[in-house]
Amino acid sequence: MIPEHQPLQIGSLLFEGLDQIDLTGPFEVLSRLPNSTYRIYGKTIAPVRDVKGLLLTPDAMLSAAPQLDVLHVPGGPGQETLMNDDEVLGWVRTQAAGARIVFSVCTGALICGAAGLLKGRRATTYWAAMHLLPYFGATPVDARVVVDGNLVCAAGVTAGLDGALTVAALLRGDEAAETIQLYMQYAPEPPFNAGSPETAPPEIVACVREAACELMARREETAQAVAKRLGVAPPART
Amino acid sequence: MIPEHQPLQIGSLLFEGLDQIDLTGPFEVLSRLPNSTYRIYGKTIAPVRDVKGLLLTPDAMLSAAPQLDVLHVPGGPGQETLMNDDEVLGWVRTQAAGARIVFSVCTGALICGAAGLLKGRRATTYWAAMHLLPYFGATPVDARVVVDGNLVCAAGVTAGLDGALTVAALLRGDEAAETIQLYMQYAPEPPFNAGSPETAPPEIVACVREAACELMARREETAQAVAKRLGVAPPART
Repeated sequence: MIPEHQPLQIGSLLFEGLDQIDLTGPFEVLSRLPNSTYRIYGKTIAPVRDVKGLLLTPDAMLSAAPQLDVLHVPGGPGQETLMNDDEVLGWVRTQAAGARIVFSVCTGALICGAAGLLKGRRATTYWAAMHLLPYFGATPVDARVVVDGNLVCAAGVTAGLDGALTVAALLRGDEAAETIQLYMQYAPEPPFNAGSPETAPPEIVACVREAACELMARREETAQAVAKRLGVAPPART
Repeated sequence: MIPEHQPLQIGSLLFEGLDQIDLTGPFEVLSRLPNSTYRIYGKTIAPVRDVKGLLLTPDAMLSAAPQLDVLHVPGGPGQETLMNDDEVLGWVRTQAAGARIVFSVCTGALICGAAGLLKGRRATTYWAAMHLLPYFGATPVDARVVVDGNLVCAAGVTAGLDGALTVAALLRGDEAAETIQLYMQYAPEPPFNAGSPETAPPEIVACVREAACELMARREETAQAVAKRLGVAPPART
């Protein structure tokens, strides 16, 4: 926990084709931390569209970011184009080295992995991408939020809300996190019970897997290349 | 339920000072409905900042919107400035008249109320604003999501996710909604149980009420003026 008189710099990486709630969920929570500044950083300051077309605009370029206390890395299909992007991976690596917390949401974990941040760490990611974590030297943990030292990983998409509340509590204590939870009336009541592959009807799991199939194949190929670059032995096939 | 071959036009009202997840939560869900178009509408196409500073940009001006099938009205502190805005209220009223569903989130219900859409309807809103609903002729219902005819109201902030899944099911059926729920891994696990005034520690409820106190006083004054304009008898003091 950081004393409240010490200001916190929080920043998200924004990129074309992200899944917007990977960013906007954590923003909702962490922008309300006492004595903190939350800004959005992009390769340029041009607006980008999320995978379904929502326009989001960075506050500043990557190079204009101060050392962040919280580096937040969202995911979504656009993550793939960053896996070999030296500018972005270098920025993530440099920021992570000085950050109090590195916070990945969904397939943002794969970006962190490509930056070499997951080696020897327990981690989680989107349910359909869990099998890729070992390529980055990580141990997959099937949990909604995984904390390993200064690395906090949230599972898929909306898990960013739960992950951000965890980060809020780590930084400013439980009461601060609870105050934010009440503010945002986060007492979820999903009208269905299909939020994980264990509880969703099997035909729906098959359908979502099928829709992601091509992207997942590309992600695996990329992960294999990253494993080679990082010197990680490829995971055993199960 | 609308047959899938019939396209759906979905639109959100965007305004300065909204609470961004009131919009981005529903966008996450409803932008994934089969055969649908989701666009964001503003008074101008200039970017606006949400109450905590996130930049969001409309796709088009209000006047450029086609008749929407789903009219989505988010809330947040900026809602106050729309309560007497004839252009916005007129647009909401006209769109609502032809929409299959009017979907309010959080204090977006107050905007709908000011447009006269809540008269004689059951409704919900942010927990700290429930007592204002009778000024608009509505019956407050303490539920996360309230469906009354073509009006769907979600409670505060993050309730927009649950409300949007309900809307998704009304429009395209349960399976479509469940598919989206799995896609976005919406199996929430809040790390605390402070998401409603009934479960949060009393001192935290007092603290959030205190922080909202000035805004709530302004909202009540505005609601009283709207009640007069709408010819609604003011609610009995309890």
